[in-house]
Amino acid sequence: MIQSFIKYLEKPIFNNPILIVGLPGIGNIGKIAVKFLISELTAKKFGILFSPHLPYQVVISEAGLIRLLSNEFYYSTSEKDTNDLIILTGDFQSQTIFGQYEIAEVIIDFCKEFNVKKIITIGGFVTGNIEDPPKVYGAINHPSLNSWIEQFAVEPCDFGVPIVGAAGLLIGLARLKEIDGICLLGETSGYIMDARASKAVLDRINTFLKLDINLTKLNEMDQESQEKVDKIKEIEKGEGISKKLKERFTQKERDLSYFG
Amino acid sequence: MIQSFIKYLEKPIFNNPILIVGLPGIGNIGKIAVKFLISELTAKKFGILFSPHLPYQVVISEAGLIRLLSNEFYYSTSEKDTNDLIILTGDFQSQTIFGQYEIAEVIIDFCKEFNVKKIITIGGFVTGNIEDPPKVYGAINHPSLNSWIEQFAVEPCDFGVPIVGAAGLLIGLARLKEIDGICLLGETSGYIMDARASKAVLDRINTFLKLDINLTKLNEMDQESQEKVDKIKEIEKGEGISKKLKERFTQKERDLSYFG
Amino acid sequence: MIQSFIKYLEKPIFNNPILIVGLPGIGNIGKIAVKFLISELTAKKFGILFSPHLPYQVVISEAGLIRLLSNEFYYSTSEKDTNDLIILTGDFQSQTIFGQYEIAEVIIDFCKEFNVKKIITIGGFVTGNIEDPPKVYGAINHPSLNSWIEQFAVEPCDFGVPIVGAAGLLIGLARLKEIDGICLLGETSGYIMDARASKAVLDRINTFLKLDINLTKLNEMDQESQEKVDKIKEIEKGEGISKKLKERFTQKERDLSYFG
Amino acid sequence: MIQSFIKYLEKPIFNNPILIVGLPGIGNIGKIAVKFLISELTAKKFGILFSPHLPYQVVISEAGLIRLLSNEFYYSTSEKDTNDLIILTGDFQSQTIFGQYEIAEVIIDFCKEFNVKKIITIGGFVTGNIEDPPKVYGAINHPSLNSWIEQFAVEPCDFGVPIVGAAGLLIGLARLKEIDGICLLGETSGYIMDARASKAVLDRINTFLKLDINLTKLNEMDQESQEKVDKIKEIEKGEGISKKLKERFTQKERDLSYFG
Repeated sequence: MIQSFIKYLEKPIFNNPILIVGLPGIGNIGKIAVKFLISELTAKKFGILFSPHLPYQVVISEAGLIRLLSNEFYYSTSEKDTNDLIILTGDFQSQTIFGQYEIAEVIIDFCKEFNVKKIITIGGFVTGNIEDPPKVYGAINHPSLNSWIEQFAVEPCDFGVPIVGAAGLLIGLARLKEIDGICLLGETSGYIMDARASKAVLDRINTFLKLDINLTKLNEMDQESQEKVDKIKEIEKGEGISKKLKERFTQKERDLSYFG
Repeated sequence: MIQSFIKYLEKPIFNNPILIVGLPGIGNIGKIAVKFLISELTAKKFGILFSPHLPYQVVISEAGLIRLLSNEFYYSTSEKDTNDLIILTGDFQSQTIFGQYEIAEVIIDFCKEFNVKKIITIGGFVTGNIEDPPKVYGAINHPSLNSWIEQFAVEPCDFGVPIVGAAGLLIGLARLKEIDGICLLGETSGYIMDARASKAVLDRINTFLKLDINLTKLNEMDQESQEKVDKIKEIEKGEGISKKLKERFTQKERDLSYFG
Repeated sequence: MIQSFIKYLEKPIFNNPILIVGLPGIGNIGKIAVKFLISELTAKKFGILFSPHLPYQVVISEAGLIRLLSNEFYYSTSEKDTNDLIILTGDFQSQTIFGQYEIAEVIIDFCKEFNVKKIITIGGFVTGNIEDPPKVYGAINHPSLNSWIEQFAVEPCDFGVPIVGAAGLLIGLARLKEIDGICLLGETSGYIMDARASKAVLDRINTFLKLDINLTKLNEMDQESQEKVDKIKEIEKGEGISKKLKERFTQKERDLSYFG
Repeated sequence: MIQSFIKYLEKPIFNNPILIVGLPGIGNIGKIAVKFLISELTAKKFGILFSPHLPYQVVISEAGLIRLLSNEFYYSTSEKDTNDLIILTGDFQSQTIFGQYEIAEVIIDFCKEFNVKKIITIGGFVTGNIEDPPKVYGAINHPSLNSWIEQFAVEPCDFGVPIVGAAGLLIGLARLKEIDGICLLGETSGYIMDARASKAVLDRINTFLKLDINLTKLNEMDQESQEKVDKIKEIEKGEGISKKLKERFTQKERDLSYFG
């Protein structure tokens, strides 16, 4: 394989589709969020993106069975005749500069082919003081989408802040093809798989897209995560190892390479 | 050279060929196993894969004579009118992401050209407690091959485990071209060139392919290896340097770059 | 995106255009200088260079609005019927070898298309003893341009010195297309965003191109910078942390990745 | 620039040309040797190889004048109607895997175009005990060239030894195009620009090609080098800093990036 491509299991015809992207990243907020969406909407897998810019490994998908690393497209048709949803998640983001851009191009080409006019990407934003529920930051890819900031009830990202990885890059590149996009970033400590931040982001998507999904199931995951945070905080008090943990997780962000 | 390619010494016509792959890797289990096979079957070299993604060095192949690094294809025609064997080994695996995928593509294209329908790849699996003989783990590239797990008498790899490098990648990519594949991983400490693990894997291939190869010669290599392990264990008891050794070998795995 | 390209907002017809390049680099001297030029000349943006070799991130360009990283072309038409000016600046330089060359090629192709015959690039040069005002070093890309060294009143760069990054590479590659070029390097400590060095360079360009720009506004930025330098010097005396600072900034140079 | 290429100043017609290659590397033995050859034979530059895989910097070639990094082809026509000589040297070798192979391909294509049938590459070989004069090791790229080992009076390289970089890679790749090649490696400590090793290698080439070049001028450079070695040895005795020096130079070898 020398170029990224999408293998289709089927090619559905969509009604005003919106793409929601949640790939591994800081706190795995995007991946947790969209995997929950996929499960709740019983969304159907229809496309698999393979790439020579993903790590050169395979993963055991069920006992004794391997599969290539990939990003995967799911869809859920709307019962209310509004927007169909396409959901993208995956094992990894590319770990090279060129790879990130090449994969993003394949995804944007997908959007053009399937007439996707709106993209919502989900990521995490590391801050020191996390509110309960965590804040959600937002950034749009065109001034004309300003009302989205209000409709999603998000805090606009501050001037100058960089957003690293596919969540930002995809809506940046989408603009070049006249596709609207918003990036939603859940506030997180970056220490843990942060289901609480995922829930905060999904809450906004739920409202904006009128999905009526019950998010309470995420509380359980949230609680598990929170217990870990509490333990970390305790340890921090006692032994001051927070620095090590922070370093470890900063490293992980950089790698963009842990499973969710 | 800007693309990987295979230079053919001859282009044999094969009868239901099966490709067996043993490249350098953890414990060099794959390479030791297939080099033994090549020797026992007096398999004949017929193709050499060169690549701009292998290290930029040459190696002295006999006193005063250099050759490019390569991966090499051998074959052994079956006397029993069953499957011909094609065996692939080599000096190195690629050390870059794109290189791994590009070389794998050339190998899969080779399989299509020579009508290879089955691939067996061999690698190592680092565990803490190694049984005697070492366990062999297996992973297939399609659910329909489930019976292979039993036929090879291997332990199915656990859910979520990644297999890094060509042993996994090749059968992962093979699936995209409808080629069946199994990856056999010999349990190893990762400390040494592990002929015992190679023997354990070959034992399975011997049975599955009814090769009737006498593997006892591998005991000698095994013993050498084992004496090294024993020494390491002694040292570990006395001086606790096992951690250093482990680190060293973990590094080596990452490099995938030592000779066998 | 798999290739660098320029998106044009308009395609002006230029009168003997000269390209002035100030990208992020040591002390950010080039970027500060050309941003000041752009502001003073109210130069107009007309082209945006995007590249899969720039970091895979986006940046918040105003509250809540993202844009891709880019290099940007501005122009200012001359009122005196002499040379129109084209000014290139940007968020980043490429961080890979191939990326630097690929982006430079796109810029040189731009020069051919818009009939640019002269390129002035601006960068920084780290020295231990910085004069007040700082010296400006110069290097031309053809012996026939020797008189420029005098006209710009710059110190010729010493034999053997390497100039790393786009400031040097662009005029090096320009030569292959018969385009004249000079690289102006402001002497700097490398510790700070060095507006004083930028001013020293602009002073030369001001004279050479007879731009009549009032550079005094740069004194303010200069003073801010200078206060930082003074603080650093004080600290150095007291606590000897200069080494740390130097390391930090050397690292930054290497990254070529900080904003200006 | 996105591909390596050679810019020709002229395209001479050669009489049985032999290519001699001396690029920067361990001890800079190859570069010192061929620069001496170029000077003694007053060889004429006729081709410049540029590449997007060389470092993204330019160098001041004379006060105030820059040029791109490059590899350069010189020639010297034989007065004795035997072999014309083509000599290749340069600023750097590529620092990436793919770059090494891509540049090597351009050089081999050059050989095919100019009907080069023999290549002699020069490099260094780090050993602990250096004889006086230093030994020269040799490695050929085809068994039929076995007599060269004797004719050059070199020690054949030992089985299994890797030769890293262009000196080995070029004759390895040359074989694929039926071009004969030998790699001559001067024994060196790796500590210094090793003119003594260069002289030892040139001595062999002098004899083999009947060049009648007076090599005594190299003794001066040799002596300078030797004084440095002596100082290092003294320091080693007194202060044991040899390890640091070795590390520093090992690092340099890895970088292949210092001037000669």
